[in-house]
Amino acid sequence: MRILILGGDGYLGWPTAMYLSKKKHDVCVLDNFSKRQIEIENNIQPLDSIYTLHDRIEHWNNINNKKISLKVGDILNAKFLYKVLSEIKPDTIIHYAEQPSAPYSMMSREKAVMTQYNNVIGNLNLLFAMKSIVPNCHLVKLGTMGEYGTPNIDIEEGYLKIKHNGREDIVSFPKKPGSFYHLSKVHDSHNIMFACKIWNLKATDLNQGVVYGVQTEETSLDTRLRTSFHYDEIFGTLLNRLCTQVVCNHPLTVYGNGSQKRGYLNITDTLKCVELSCLNPAKKGEFRVFNQFTETFSVLELARKVEKVGIKIGYKPKIKMLKNPRIEQEDHYYNPKHKKLTDMGLKPTLLNDEFIASMINEIERSKSYIKKNIIKPKVKWNQ
Amino acid sequence: MRILILGGDGYLGWPTAMYLSKKKHDVCVLDNFSKRQIEIENNIQPLDSIYTLHDRIEHWNNINNKKISLKVGDILNAKFLYKVLSEIKPDTIIHYAEQPSAPYSMMSREKAVMTQYNNVIGNLNLLFAMKSIVPNCHLVKLGTMGEYGTPNIDIEEGYLKIKHNGREDIVSFPKKPGSFYHLSKVHDSHNIMFACKIWNLKATDLNQGVVYGVQTEETSLDTRLRTSFHYDEIFGTLLNRLCTQVVCNHPLTVYGNGSQKRGYLNITDTLKCVELSCLNPAKKGEFRVFNQFTETFSVLELARKVEKVGIKIGYKPKIKMLKNPRIEQEDHYYNPKHKKLTDMGLKPTLLNDEFIASMINEIERSKSYIKKNIIKPKVKWNQ
Repeated sequence: MRILILGGDGYLGWPTAMYLSKKKHDVCVLDNFSKRQIEIENNIQPLDSIYTLHDRIEHWNNINNKKISLKVGDILNAKFLYKVLSEIKPDTIIHYAEQPSAPYSMMSREKAVMTQYNNVIGNLNLLFAMKSIVPNCHLVKLGTMGEYGTPNIDIEEGYLKIKHNGREDIVSFPKKPGSFYHLSKVHDSHNIMFACKIWNLKATDLNQGVVYGVQTEETSLDTRLRTSFHYDEIFGTLLNRLCTQVVCNHPLTVYGNGSQKRGYLNITDTLKCVELSCLNPAKKGEFRVFNQFTETFSVLELARKVEKVGIKIGYKPKIKMLKNPRIEQEDHYYNPKHKKLTDMGLKPTLLNDEFIASMINEIERSKSYIKKNIIKPKVKWNQ
Repeated sequence: MRILILGGDGYLGWPTAMYLSKKKHDVCVLDNFSKRQIEIENNIQPLDSIYTLHDRIEHWNNINNKKISLKVGDILNAKFLYKVLSEIKPDTIIHYAEQPSAPYSMMSREKAVMTQYNNVIGNLNLLFAMKSIVPNCHLVKLGTMGEYGTPNIDIEEGYLKIKHNGREDIVSFPKKPGSFYHLSKVHDSHNIMFACKIWNLKATDLNQGVVYGVQTEETSLDTRLRTSFHYDEIFGTLLNRLCTQVVCNHPLTVYGNGSQKRGYLNITDTLKCVELSCLNPAKKGEFRVFNQFTETFSVLELARKVEKVGIKIGYKPKIKMLKNPRIEQEDHYYNPKHKKLTDMGLKPTLLNDEFIASMINEIERSKSYIKKNIIKPKVKWNQ
């Protein structure tokens, strides 16, 4: 299968590229390195310094028969994007190429505008390019469980059958997104759904939970193949941040009372879910939505798990409750469905103490590089 | 009340400005004239040549004690927008300043991108500017009934109480928008709802039906005060287009089988609805949605009404069914609620034969200016 990965330099994009290349697909990655730009502007560094995408690809290609190719450029540049699609003629496009941080989108007007402009218009360009050049290509688009927010009803996978005043309809599941970033993903979903309807495109929207993990099978082959692991307030996801806090003797920061529940998944499960979506494409005209996570935890539950494991292996972690910098519900109902990917064959890698210990050990190796000053949340939702 | 009208040069913006000025409000209008630019690019002209906004304001101010003021600029320019809000300190902002055409948004990638960029980012700038400078100002935002599409259930005003698996929630009414333009309005609504929630802003989203009418009390005072009446495929709304077709002996074009139902309202009712919204503002933190129309018709019903009146006053109109250039449902259920504005005091001006005859007579006066070549639909949804 010819697979084009947009955003191939990122935490998930790069491991996905290697994973699918190893499975004998023809992989091309594209990136404009805008996330590296945001890192520099905000004094953020991933835990380990990450090789350039060019160097990583070169190393991968040196040790594998299947070669990964690279396109450097921005999907906001329609001419570039059309050219790449004409050249690669992908069967599948995996679209990770979006500004991925909720706190970043809440920093200022400029960042909110950048986030919605970058994500919505990049995705619009992609839809038009697919329609013109590869109308049979399958779009695998990364959305987020955060699009749904925390409604007081069960969260279905993308659609909801509604009965109202004695009549019925199936509608797009009503969303309650919690940041300008999450809103950008909701806008994307609406745009893609419409494009599938009017142009008969095929798309799968992966509403992904919070990803955790330092390594995948491929990233651990060589330091030159590592992926960018973030523990800062902007790009760091919860479990990654907590494990790093253990290692650098930073309090385990819990926002609010910690009762906020979310869906989580191991980075290796992200790769498997994306692969399953590629191998079982949507039909022509179909806009399919999968909820991509394997289990739910509250923030406090995860902090307690990490605290327990940290103590067991000799650290002295302490949980610290912070005034919630976000505006989000606490003590809410949360029951999101996630059946479609397991029905398709996903065998979840559930979280356990051993895995948390292994993450802490991984992070320990780079302990001296941790910047403690980028962990504490400074971005507030109502400022 | 200090009222700032964004998009004050348009079909509805200008009549709204005069109407509210006459009611003794302090009115400032703002426009970047982007719609006039689109007209020129597409060989479109309003029926009557419209005076510049400067000249119209000057004439209005010459004949009235209350003066209208003018700001020329683009709300995409945040610095300009912030400066205007700091200077005017409006109590109410009426936001018409969006690319208003569905067919335009479907012409090409460039136009779709322009529409979503212009509408979504302009509106985002506005939300941030309000939060910074006039956090107690009431936003009256023009949305469209087209955001809802044609679901198989009753359309409520903005929200829907859902029962699902034994639990309940109130959610934003699920949308099925039918063009990249309608999608831009859905994106706006989501962004505004979020801003009200996190920043305690006040907003009213007016999901307006299709507006018809040539004159308002104020526009008819003097030819120099007229508003831009469109009958072309890009900006012309259905009834306005049908009445113009009668006058220029063009077939009355019906897209598809004509069974598509929509909500309609008289331009004078638009002014009254907007006024009612201004006088009864949303509360702090409230995102309120009104469905702003007074009655529903199918396309064919309206064409038949116009045909009948046309014949009565001596024309020979003929209905012509065209292959539907849009992708939209025909023979669908349509029962949108519209109670909130009438509860607030709206006395609807319903459509009757006399009004259609008066529209035809108005248009007749400018018969020689009609450009027949801009009426037929050329923009197709799946091209």
